[in-house]
Amino acid sequence: MTKRPQPLRVALLGPGVVGKKAAQLLIDEAAELGARVGRPLELAAVGSRRASVEGIDQALLTSDLDALVRRNDIDLVVELIGGIEPARSLILAAIEHGKSVVTANKALLARHGAELFAAADAHGVDVYYEAAVGGAIPIIRPLRESLVADSVTAVMGIVNGTTNYILDQMHTHGVTYAEALADAQKLGFAEADPTADVEGHDAAAKAAILASLAFHTRVTFDDVACEGISSITAGDIAAAKEMGCVIKLLARCAKADDGSVAVGVHPTMVPLEHPLASVSGAFNAVFVELEWADKLMFMGPGAGGRPTASAVVGDVVTAARNKVRGVAGPGETSYNEPNICDPGRVSSRYYLQMVVQDSPGVLAQIATCFAAHDVSIQAVRQVPAGPDAVHEAQLGIMTHTAPNAQVRALIAALETMAEVDEGVRVLRVEGE
Amino acid sequence: MTKRPQPLRVALLGPGVVGKKAAQLLIDEAAELGARVGRPLELAAVGSRRASVEGIDQALLTSDLDALVRRNDIDLVVELIGGIEPARSLILAAIEHGKSVVTANKALLARHGAELFAAADAHGVDVYYEAAVGGAIPIIRPLRESLVADSVTAVMGIVNGTTNYILDQMHTHGVTYAEALADAQKLGFAEADPTADVEGHDAAAKAAILASLAFHTRVTFDDVACEGISSITAGDIAAAKEMGCVIKLLARCAKADDGSVAVGVHPTMVPLEHPLASVSGAFNAVFVELEWADKLMFMGPGAGGRPTASAVVGDVVTAARNKVRGVAGPGETSYNEPNICDPGRVSSRYYLQMVVQDSPGVLAQIATCFAAHDVSIQAVRQVPAGPDAVHEAQLGIMTHTAPNAQVRALIAALETMAEVDEGVRVLRVEGE
Repeated sequence: MTKRPQPLRVALLGPGVVGKKAAQLLIDEAAELGARVGRPLELAAVGSRRASVEGIDQALLTSDLDALVRRNDIDLVVELIGGIEPARSLILAAIEHGKSVVTANKALLARHGAELFAAADAHGVDVYYEAAVGGAIPIIRPLRESLVADSVTAVMGIVNGTTNYILDQMHTHGVTYAEALADAQKLGFAEADPTADVEGHDAAAKAAILASLAFHTRVTFDDVACEGISSITAGDIAAAKEMGCVIKLLARCAKADDGSVAVGVHPTMVPLEHPLASVSGAFNAVFVELEWADKLMFMGPGAGGRPTASAVVGDVVTAARNKVRGVAGPGETSYNEPNICDPGRVSSRYYLQMVVQDSPGVLAQIATCFAAHDVSIQAVRQVPAGPDAVHEAQLGIMTHTAPNAQVRALIAALETMAEVDEGVRVLRVEGE
Repeated sequence: MTKRPQPLRVALLGPGVVGKKAAQLLIDEAAELGARVGRPLELAAVGSRRASVEGIDQALLTSDLDALVRRNDIDLVVELIGGIEPARSLILAAIEHGKSVVTANKALLARHGAELFAAADAHGVDVYYEAAVGGAIPIIRPLRESLVADSVTAVMGIVNGTTNYILDQMHTHGVTYAEALADAQKLGFAEADPTADVEGHDAAAKAAILASLAFHTRVTFDDVACEGISSITAGDIAAAKEMGCVIKLLARCAKADDGSVAVGVHPTMVPLEHPLASVSGAFNAVFVELEWADKLMFMGPGAGGRPTASAVVGDVVTAARNKVRGVAGPGETSYNEPNICDPGRVSSRYYLQMVVQDSPGVLAQIATCFAAHDVSIQAVRQVPAGPDAVHEAQLGIMTHTAPNAQVRALIAALETMAEVDEGVRVLRVEGE
């Protein structure tokens, strides 16, 4: 008589949009998932403070989350509550009680990742979080495993679907930021309070996670220089088009010349020939540059209940396979001491746009100012400033790569010139 | 006194273009790789039948490969010899002697994968092969792990750089197949004997590997319906352009309605709006459609010494991490009995091109013939056949999705019609 193998039992915390789909996937595909794990996989409980949740069997529901993550009959905990507390305490308690944890909580990982990974390491369990960056796109595991022999030089990504949708609408239909945001809110692509998305905080958390993995170190949310899209104007979009670019909110981390790590989120002019330029709508994509593998791109749906549930349950299956073997999978390596590049030393190409007096010698004076600040000019575009401004011209200048602080100093100097109007506009430009 | 941890020792077989780079990566980055594994990783021996190999330390070289794969001081074997024998026997011997194996040998995996995986399973070691499909692109591990909870409906890819380069040249510069091939050979993108690439055999091996993983079954090289690009004409390229498409050699596997797996390699008209259409030159890309995650794309360099070495050594590090834990990683699951779709039952859109008499009623007769064979028409394009053929027209018809056998029967019927010249040209079209 063969004994039926003991199922691995999963507790899911937070049955929201993603949580409900993850529960459905675990239940509907239980037979397939069991075959892939090598042992039955069972959704044993769903933790929620709500008394009832549509689509979730009442018998599975429990409101005592603190007790649930400590229960002896639970092997794996899926945390989809979001936010810092109580998610952090619940995950730590689950780890201390020997459970592997799957989470999509980028805000928590970007602030307390090191604490969670250290606890997991000490207790021999997994903390997996493929869904935290890029929704369904496999990027965490490829960085941690497939590309582990290589040296990453830069990772950049479109990792926020809301802002990509808004910028896409502005670029394609010529609408203003406010109009595009309202449209995104109407369609459910943006929250009623869109701050976390449009100010880049969501992307910054993801940038911190990617930088930590890519450079085998610990980068936190506070290390990320963060700039949102709320100040992007129709004029910026038009200027980008003129320069053969499209504006994307890029999360970018890269190794600087001195070995430090530059991490930032910025609206960026991306040349149309770059693979990231054609990633439109609510899609996400991550572009990785490496010393050996050269350039790779990963693209897919960055959000949504079903895609994110796929990534979450993929992690559950992988963690369950490790449980079957009685081991934890390879964890994060963070043997490099954190060394964050001073934002002023981060180098990039820039596009500067200004209104100047349209009189002889002005361009020469401006070019001299660039040279004095050791900022090299790559391209210039001059057009009349407008029908009512006959003595003024709009001047757009794309620089070669230069350190941020130098460009800031240049702008300050330009703005003191009598021939240049105040309010020089500046945008990063991707590429060399 | 702390004991220095015992290094994990690697034997590399086949120091060719990829092998030399993999050896260099293992040597140059030994300190970093050791930190990522958690134990030193050492290239202990290089097996080659040649007496000396440029760039490889003579002290590492050994010509007795049979002895090498059995040596007690070797933990991991990297097989980069290629071909079926002696690679197969060497890998099996290595597995039987407790070594984990990393290989890039798609030809072997597509024919004897099941035997290698069963042996690895029986001996508790890993067989990893990320470099076998798509060079540096992480696609094997994402399919086996990240997407393991999902149900793949289709995988299609541009997985051969040589043919993609040739087709790209034909499309972009209007050159003939023969000219583009000669150019590719001159640049080193094509072999002196290009058969394996241009007839689709290389892509077919990769299709078999992808299908096995995606559908948790065993698909071999002989199961793949294979068609190369050597018969593609400038006229085909022009017709594709007219239809808003580009011709790509696609390896494609998909779940048919009856649950069977359709696997083929075919020159395919890909609509320009499809993400695979813009994958040009020697780049590779794999596009995956899933029930939950929707659509994902992975893109990168599909060949070359350095990128492929990155994938190979990434597998070495992952296998080494498993060795440190005393386990094998999760293996392939192939619990579904092989069930290959009859090629005649594989459905697709098709583009048919024919020369017809330009007289009243001909189009009606042809359309009637389509209807009689239950093949629905999506688009029609008619142009004069040429300046000297005033009574003839060239007719291009794109169908809706129809089974291959039905379209073949339709073509046979068309060719019996007095109004249709012999030699109806047919190409698959991607999409619905």
